[in-house]
Order: sequence, then structure tokens, then C-alpha cells
Amino acid sequence: MFGRQMKKTPSGIVPIIRIDRRAREPLHRQIYNAFRTGIVERALRPNERVPSTRTLAAELGISRIPVLNAYAQLLAEGYFESRVGAGTLISSMLPDQVPSPARPSSSSVATTGGSRTISRDCESFPSMQNVLPWLGGRRGAFSIGQPALDQFPIKIWSRLVVRQCRNQRFASMHYSDPMGSRDLRVAIASYLRTARGVRCEPEQVMIVSGSQQAVEITTRVLLDRGSRVWMEEPGYRFARNVFALNGCKIVAVPVDDEGLNVAVGIERCRHARAALVTPSHQYPLGVTMSASRRLQLLEWSYASGSWIIEDDYDSEFRYESQPIASLQGLDRCSRVVYIGTFSKVLFPSLRLGYLVIPPDLLDRFLAVRVTLDIGPATFFQSVLADFMQEGHFSRHIRRMRLLYRDRRSALLHSIRQDLGVPVEVKGEEAGLHLSLTLHRGFRDRELAERALKERLWLAPLSGSYQEQPAPQGFILGFSNTSAAEIPGAIRKLRSILRSH
Amino acid sequence: MFGRQMKKTPSGIVPIIRIDRRAREPLHRQIYNAFRTGIVERALRPNERVPSTRTLAAELGISRIPVLNAYAQLLAEGYFESRVGAGTLISSMLPDQVPSPARPSSSSVATTGGSRTISRDCESFPSMQNVLPWLGGRRGAFSIGQPALDQFPIKIWSRLVVRQCRNQRFASMHYSDPMGSRDLRVAIASYLRTARGVRCEPEQVMIVSGSQQAVEITTRVLLDRGSRVWMEEPGYRFARNVFALNGCKIVAVPVDDEGLNVAVGIERCRHARAALVTPSHQYPLGVTMSASRRLQLLEWSYASGSWIIEDDYDSEFRYESQPIASLQGLDRCSRVVYIGTFSKVLFPSLRLGYLVIPPDLLDRFLAVRVTLDIGPATFFQSVLADFMQEGHFSRHIRRMRLLYRDRRSALLHSIRQDLGVPVEVKGEEAGLHLSLTLHRGFRDRELAERALKERLWLAPLSGSYQEQPAPQGFILGFSNTSAAEIPGAIRKLRSILRSH
Repeated sequence: MFGRQMKKTPSGIVPIIRIDRRAREPLHRQIYNAFRTGIVERALRPNERVPSTRTLAAELGISRIPVLNAYAQLLAEGYFESRVGAGTLISSMLPDQVPSPARPSSSSVATTGGSRTISRDCESFPSMQNVLPWLGGRRGAFSIGQPALDQFPIKIWSRLVVRQCRNQRFASMHYSDPMGSRDLRVAIASYLRTARGVRCEPEQVMIVSGSQQAVEITTRVLLDRGSRVWMEEPGYRFARNVFALNGCKIVAVPVDDEGLNVAVGIERCRHARAALVTPSHQYPLGVTMSASRRLQLLEWSYASGSWIIEDDYDSEFRYESQPIASLQGLDRCSRVVYIGTFSKVLFPSLRLGYLVIPPDLLDRFLAVRVTLDIGPATFFQSVLADFMQEGHFSRHIRRMRLLYRDRRSALLHSIRQDLGVPVEVKGEEAGLHLSLTLHRGFRDRELAERALKERLWLAPLSGSYQEQPAPQGFILGFSNTSAAEIPGAIRKLRSILRSH
Repeated sequence: MFGRQMKKTPSGIVPIIRIDRRAREPLHRQIYNAFRTGIVERALRPNERVPSTRTLAAELGISRIPVLNAYAQLLAEGYFESRVGAGTLISSMLPDQVPSPARPSSSSVATTGGSRTISRDCESFPSMQNVLPWLGGRRGAFSIGQPALDQFPIKIWSRLVVRQCRNQRFASMHYSDPMGSRDLRVAIASYLRTARGVRCEPEQVMIVSGSQQAVEITTRVLLDRGSRVWMEEPGYRFARNVFALNGCKIVAVPVDDEGLNVAVGIERCRHARAALVTPSHQYPLGVTMSASRRLQLLEWSYASGSWIIEDDYDSEFRYESQPIASLQGLDRCSRVVYIGTFSKVLFPSLRLGYLVIPPDLLDRFLAVRVTLDIGPATFFQSVLADFMQEGHFSRHIRRMRLLYRDRRSALLHSIRQDLGVPVEVKGEEAGLHLSLTLHRGFRDRELAERALKERLWLAPLSGSYQEQPAPQGFILGFSNTSAAEIPGAIRKLRSILRSH
């Protein structure tokens, strides 16, 4: 307990103490009063370390004697305490004579005076409190977007981290290229050309913190407030949030077994400024966009002068059919902005992803990027460039594909064998999740809440639809759920569906 | 050269090859053609490593024999080459019979078909090409915003990095709290309460990638398009860019020797939604906002229901006068959003900073933050929390203050001694830069361009003004320019000013 407390407070910070040499009050009294007031008003908190008398005297530019006197008194009165090995600290047991805070503590500062107007877009924006548990980590079987972290080659990664640390130059601690490090951009461009059929040069690659930031930057460059944008229906809610926060008008375009239904999109809004699509493995249904739909979509974009945002978030994992090249690779007019992320292939807390930008828009993307956050941190870009160059990246993808294929097969088998409730399964050919549509009468949100108590993390399918009432079902992630765990989890799901 | 090339391309990536078992063409020929086409079309580039025959056969689900045959032919014809220790690569010298690219390479994809409409805000936004050299690192004496990186305790830091690496748990590789790690937020809150007089609890602290992202998030939460916002005149251009990109109307409020002139602000626009200020060390002039102005500013914000954004970017360094508490600490109505960064106290490529958020706005800041980029990367948050908790942080600040004080004194002395041109110096009491105003007749931009050729990095003061014509002068950073280097650099400046 004591150890934990200690671990949490920075030590040796010099507090703000105003010394007045001309005051009648002696120096030691001024120092005593400053600490006492800080403690009473809770600017200084129990177990925080106090600077040494030598340090404080030097900082205040006075002799050490008044500091020693003040510290002695504060110790004697119980405001400070000494602990072996830890030095002097604000006491964890404050003396009785300490009054309750005279001024309100910082947490109770008034927030009432005057109107508190915030931006309209932000005011009407949904709360994110409900995503916090999911962001907090695995909570049960079938969590989505969670790679098998226990299979990550952490030893190899750590070795590269340590090596990078040893080789670190001062230059790499400075601000750096806001587009990202050259080595990583070269490695990504080469990977995308080879494995994804993306047509790109390293100059077109911008390193970002993940696909979320990629969508945000793209939106800021391409879309105005009020611009209309096609979103897949159902579609990725977090991307829809970006458009909403930027005041864009979302046109819901249905997805069928061939992916986005381009004809319906044209019918609903021919002159949309952009379309966001997930052609390799539609989120959430999981279907792959057919070749004819891809060509239709490109034709539409050329004819209407629209942009296509291709989010290729988990295309590394295809299980049965042969690999399918990116939509970007088919584009002959640089209409596609291509987005990828390392969150699914490596690990989410790395916060690295990338954009492939049409050459004529590079300067605009750069301007927006610098304005939003200056640029990406350098260290892990170098580690990742090494990881890719030395072949660990491709090896890891191949290993994970085998593992996820097994888990996927176990899930499909168990749904057929153990679920005992008729459902429609889609999207199992690729990626880290499949979708399961329930027949009428089920309410996926209610079921998901009940399932959570039994450690099943079922993402309700209806939440991915904009138009209501929506089909009911679940998005089941299988990448972070072991094959052994799956049958039991499906039987739990069965009893939840049965008790409905 | 060869080593460098190798270092830059990821190895063993399996290219997209569509195998058709029913085709008349034998399998080895299909593989040969796929590679040859990839090379001719430059999807595969010289020196990229090719997957092993075993890997490729496994990936394609075929026997190894046709792969071996195809590779043998590609090697014989010079498309591939073998190098000891590097395996098989795309040849660096392609055979003569390779035609020039049949299709345009990706960099020459057309960008002409149809209109290419982008967002109006982005279209009219200034290019950032001119900041790239500065972001690229030190280019000469007097660079601004650059800490003395060679004085950073890199060994201690590296030790903490290695330890963090060893202790890494799988949980920390997942998505995590979008507000930032608990330990770091506790350490920052404690530091801010003690050293900066900020009134805050860890719950109010949000970890961001730096002050730029902090201003962006704050703007998205608080301001609408068309909202009016006070900016210091002169002021921080990068913050102004955030407001401009978000369509806010900037009200330039002059700065005098007491800081922002609140009365003029009220005269120009009483009902601005917000004011961005740098009270501890005004950017760029360097003046400290007086106590009466601070109270005036707070009174205005209470009366008009306006927000105050306090950017406390380099307040850790004060050289003569006693420390001055933050404006946020004086606020009794939670009207201040407080921003800080580790770019100046530690190093810029770390990309870590923080916001202190009024309690009633926490949910809104969280919603915007998740939508912009999900959350911060975890690894260096933990390293930094350790660095603070173990006392290295406060020790580093104290050491740097002494160093910067010396450099500052050397600069002041040399300006008096060696410059020989009458100038007005301001802002030398704190921070990492001072400002130097020239008398009439000088043009700071032209001079800065000439100075760059002599390795002096002079930021023109006029660039920080919104209203033109602006006073002419320079912002001189002294934190990354050694005391020994300063007199020579000032004499260079003298000859540049003289030859004007």
C-alpha cells in the first residue's frame, strides 16, 4: 500500500513559495506558512515527497538554516513525516489541528457562474462513456478488434526496442517530419505495393496514430460542413462519429452480399462529396466487395468528382479465397484515399496507422496534420521499420493467419453444432470477426447486456445501423478467443437466446 | 550502400498472386508471370526480398515444385538475384528486355479526371512547407522551442525504457483509457498543484500528444464556426492556425508590458467565446502577465461567460523573479482550460502534453478526444510516470534552469556588448527565448533569410502578428545554443544588420 502510494507521486518538486526578505515575518516562518497553507488547501497531498532542505534553499536563494528550522517545526507538528529510504514527505496522517479546507478543493470549484456555452456539434454529440469498458481491454469471449496479444512476439519486439534505445541520437528526439519517418514510410509503401496491390510511393504515405486519426484528417481536408458523404449501412460507428462531429451529412447506403450497393447510393445522392468504404472485409457484416461493384464505385467517383475513402483495417487476414487487391490499386484517377492500421496486425496501444494520399493533395494533408498535432512520435516508428525490414512483420502475419483461421473454424463449427437457434452468418472469409443475424423477435442490446454478466462480449449489430428499426444480431470477434474457449461460450450464448 | 538499401525494404512479404488450377497455363508459368508483371509495373522494386519458395508454396496452397521452377527462371533471366545472407531479391539491375512501365507508375496516376473539390477551410489554409526545415531539427544558433537535447539524461531514460519493456504486460498493449494512464495523470496533477499552483485532480488531466493537439481538442469542444476568440497580438501562429482551420473569427488583442490588454479586448469584442493566453511567458514577446491583468481577464470571463485557454508551454524556466502561479489557480469558476507540454522540459519527439479540464466538461472532452484519435499510446506514458515519480523530472528541470540561465545571460551580455545596433529586448525573465525588436527600416523576413545561410535561425517577429504592417524583430531561442557559441552568432547578426 505504502509502496503503491509512493509510486504514484512525483518526488522533489519545489512548491511555489514567495519569500519576502523585507517582511517582518522571519524566513523560517514564511516557509512554514507556505507549506502549511499548501497542505491545508490540499495543493500538497499526503505521501508526496518534499524537496531536500538543500534543494529548497538553493531554489529560494537563501541560506539552509531557515529551511531546516521550518522543516523541523513541520515535522514536530505532524505536517511532515520522515520515512527511511523515502526522505521527507507530507504526512499521511494529518494533525488534528488542521482545519477542513478553508477554500473549496479544486474538485469543487464552482462551475455555475455565467453561461457555459460549448460548440453545438460537441453539445449534441453522443457520450463515449459506454466505449470506455471496451477500450479498457478484454472483458469476455468474442471481443472485437482485439488481436491475440499473448501471441505477439514480444521478445523480438523488446529486443528491437532496446536496440533502438541504445542507438538513439539526439536528432531523433527533436521534432521530425510530420509525414512520419522515411524508413517506415518506405517499408509501408513496399508492403502495400506487394501485398495489397496499392499503387504508391513512400512520399504519399503519412504516418498517423491509427485509422481514427486517418479518417479525421481526411475529413478535414476533403469535406465541408454540410458535405454529403456515403456511409455503408450498417457501417463503422466511430467513422460516422467523425463525420457527425465535422457537421457532414451522412447518406446511408445499404450493403448487400456484394458490398456497398452503388446503384442505391447514386439514387439517394449522386453528388455526395465522398464515400467511406471497407471493401476488403466490410465492417461490420464482413462481406467482400465484388469486382463489379468496385468498378461501379470508381466510375461513380470519376463521373461525380467524388472521393473514396478506403478503410482497409484488417485485410491482412484472408482464410479461404485468394487475396484480393485494394480498391486503391484499381483507381486510375487518384480518387482514393487509402487507410490502414497496425492496431489489428500488431497491437492497439502502439497507436500507429497510415494514410496513402493522392499526390496532388499531399500539401493539404500536411497542412492539416501539422495543425492538428504537429506530427507522430518518432521512437516506435523506428522500431516498427526494423520489425518490418527484418521479416518479423510478414512472419507474424502468417502465424496469426493460421491461428485465426483455426479460431474462426472452431467458431463456425460451434455455431452450427451448439447454438441451436437459426441465425445467418456472414463475413467469415476474412478479418477478425464475423456477423451473425438473428431472426425476428430478438433484441440484441438487451441480450448483449445480459451476456456481459456471463463474460460474453457481444457487440449488438443494430448499433452499426443508422436507420431504425435495424436488423438484430451480433458482431463476434474470434481473434482473441481461443478455440478451446469457443464451444463453452457459444453454449452460454445459446442459453441466453433460449431464455429470451 | 547495399546495407542501407536492404535496411529500407520489408522482407518476405508475399505478393498477390492469383493461381488458377483450371487454366491451361501451368502453375510455374502463372507464378513467373505474376512476378514479372509486378516487376515491370514497379509494384515490386529492386532489392526487395522475395519470400522463400517454401513460404510462397504454403501461402498459395500448392506444391513447392512449380514455385522452384518459376524462381529458377526468374533468376536465370535476371529478374531475381541471390545474395549471400540476404536470400533472393528483386534484381537491382533489371534485364534489358524489361520494357519501360506499360502502365503509368503510381506517382504518375492521373489526377485530372473530374473536379477535385476539397474543403474550403483547407483550401484557403496556408502551406506548411516553410515549417518543415524547422521541424527537421536544429539548423543554426537561436532556434526556438528546442531544448538542450545533449543535456537530456538519456542513460536514465533508457534504463526506464528497458525496464518498462521487460515489465510490459499484454494488458498494456490493448486500447487503454483515452484520458491517459492513471499513474501519469496522478503524477502530473501532483506536479501542477505543487509547482504551478494549478487546482486539479488527476480525473481532470487528459494526456494528449502536445500543446497543439490540446488547443485543437479544446477548440472542437468550446468553439463553433464563426465563434470569436481573442488571440494575443503578437501571438502563437500555430494556435491561430487551429482557430482558422475551425472557422473561428480571431480578434487580435494587443500585448503590452503587462501582457494581454484586457480593456482593449473588451472594447474590440466583449462577447468573444474564448481567449487564448500565455500568461507565464507570453509567446513571442516573453512578458509575464501582471496580477491585475490576470484578475481583469478572469472578471471578464465571468461576466461574459467566456472561456480562457491558458497555454503554459515553458513556465518551468524562470530565472530571476520568484515563481508565479498559473492563471488557472486563481480561477474560482472553472473558466480556464489549462495546457502544458513535455516538449520543452523533456524532448519534442516524445509527443506528450496534457490538458486540465473543468470538471463539468470532462465528458465532452472525452467524446471529442475518442473521435479524433481514440487515445494516447501507452508505453511512454508509463516511462514518464516513472521518470517523474523517481525524482528525475524535478532534478532535470533544476539542472536545465541553471544551464539556460547561463545561456540567457551570455545572450543578454552579448547583445549589449557585441550587437552595436539599438534594439529593444523583452521576455528574458523566463522561458527558452527572448524577443528583440528592431528600429524602423529593417525587414525581419529578408534578414532571417540571409541569416539562415550563415547558420543563424532567426524567427521573424513580424510573422507572429496578424495585423500588418507589423513591428520588425526576431525571436531568439537560447536553450539550444551554447554560451560559447553565442558571441560569434551575435557578431554574425551584427554584420547582417549592418549590411542592411
